[in-house]
Amino acid sequence: MRIFIEGIHDMGLLITLEGPDGSGKSLQADLLEKRLQAEGYSVVRSREPGGTPIGEAIRDVILNPDFQEMDSMTEALLYAASRAQHVAQKIRPALAEGRIVLLDRFLDSSLIYQGIGRALGIETVEAVNRFATGGLWPDITFMVYINFEEGLRRKKAQKGSLDRMEAQQEAFHRKVNEGYLTLTQRYPDRIVLIDGARSVQDVHQDIWDRTQKMLAERDS
Amino acid sequence: MRIFIEGIHDMGLLITLEGPDGSGKSLQADLLEKRLQAEGYSVVRSREPGGTPIGEAIRDVILNPDFQEMDSMTEALLYAASRAQHVAQKIRPALAEGRIVLLDRFLDSSLIYQGIGRALGIETVEAVNRFATGGLWPDITFMVYINFEEGLRRKKAQKGSLDRMEAQQEAFHRKVNEGYLTLTQRYPDRIVLIDGARSVQDVHQDIWDRTQKMLAERDS
Repeated sequence: MRIFIEGIHDMGLLITLEGPDGSGKSLQADLLEKRLQAEGYSVVRSREPGGTPIGEAIRDVILNPDFQEMDSMTEALLYAASRAQHVAQKIRPALAEGRIVLLDRFLDSSLIYQGIGRALGIETVEAVNRFATGGLWPDITFMVYINFEEGLRRKKAQKGSLDRMEAQQEAFHRKVNEGYLTLTQRYPDRIVLIDGARSVQDVHQDIWDRTQKMLAERDS
Repeated sequence: MRIFIEGIHDMGLLITLEGPDGSGKSLQADLLEKRLQAEGYSVVRSREPGGTPIGEAIRDVILNPDFQEMDSMTEALLYAASRAQHVAQKIRPALAEGRIVLLDRFLDSSLIYQGIGRALGIETVEAVNRFATGGLWPDITFMVYINFEEGLRRKKAQKGSLDRMEAQQEAFHRKVNEGYLTLTQRYPDRIVLIDGARSVQDVHQDIWDRTQKMLAERDS
């Protein structure tokens, strides 16, 4: 068992989980968090959009179902604003203390939803987010992928009503779903593609093996 | 008297008024609006931050006095998000109809408050706003200037409580006040510097003379 000692590491580790709704990435984040803690690591867990009181207030604007007329660029800038606050107030300070920061959605979600889904272009959304994060990128991203039909099936089984983002047209969600695969090819070194259609335990084991490897490399 | 006929002009005119709090720019916007209407022009009047229901919701987040921990980049991105919505939903459609759009604060306020006041840099805030506006710049900007001491005197006389932006330190407001002059030198062709310390009528006459000249050039 590794014991985490504050101040030993110059910098922490930023791990993000991405994937279509219903892919099980939030459950996987729970499992990874518990496993890391059991191994003695100090973990800061957070989510996007939100993560801070200001971020949550921005999240409420983004997801408000009354705001159907929201422009795509407005949406991209609001996500970026929420992220800027998250990075400044929570993520950077935790990394500076050597902690592991575990995020359920981060900038890849913007690249996919606004860059590909809303057709603003990945480059444009990347540029906006470079301002928001000050150039901070995840050390590793687990892309928990399931196809569109499987995601829809799981989502409908889970909840009755859909928020503004969820209630978009099917064509939008299909495009977004393909976007997850596009992005894994754009950042092959950073993103690990995980088949989310398997059992929860199998998916977790894949994520854990890769995380352990990364920690071993970092701490060696 | 000129009669405005819809569809005659390919494109409208975007006029912005900027200036420190207490400079009287909102009152000047009122007077200019009435004068233009009296001359038969179709005027769309708006303000920033806000201008649309989504923009007003974003404005509430920006000005919330509980959010003292707001990061400068978050603030800049929120103003840009509000502006993107304003441009897409209200400003561009009005300009496309050949109307005169009259704005009380627009992107120069961001360049000054976040670029200079928050020290993010004018170039950075310009780049973010280029995404927000899709490259739309005012045709003419009236910079109604008063110095810091005069602004403070007028503001205190007007209202009892101050919102989050107003309650910033004096050093911040002094820097912002100087920023108004810096900006007039950065964009000498677009920005008309107006001495706001004179009588309301004198200031209005200057603004009206210049506006008439611009309209005459456009319509000739």
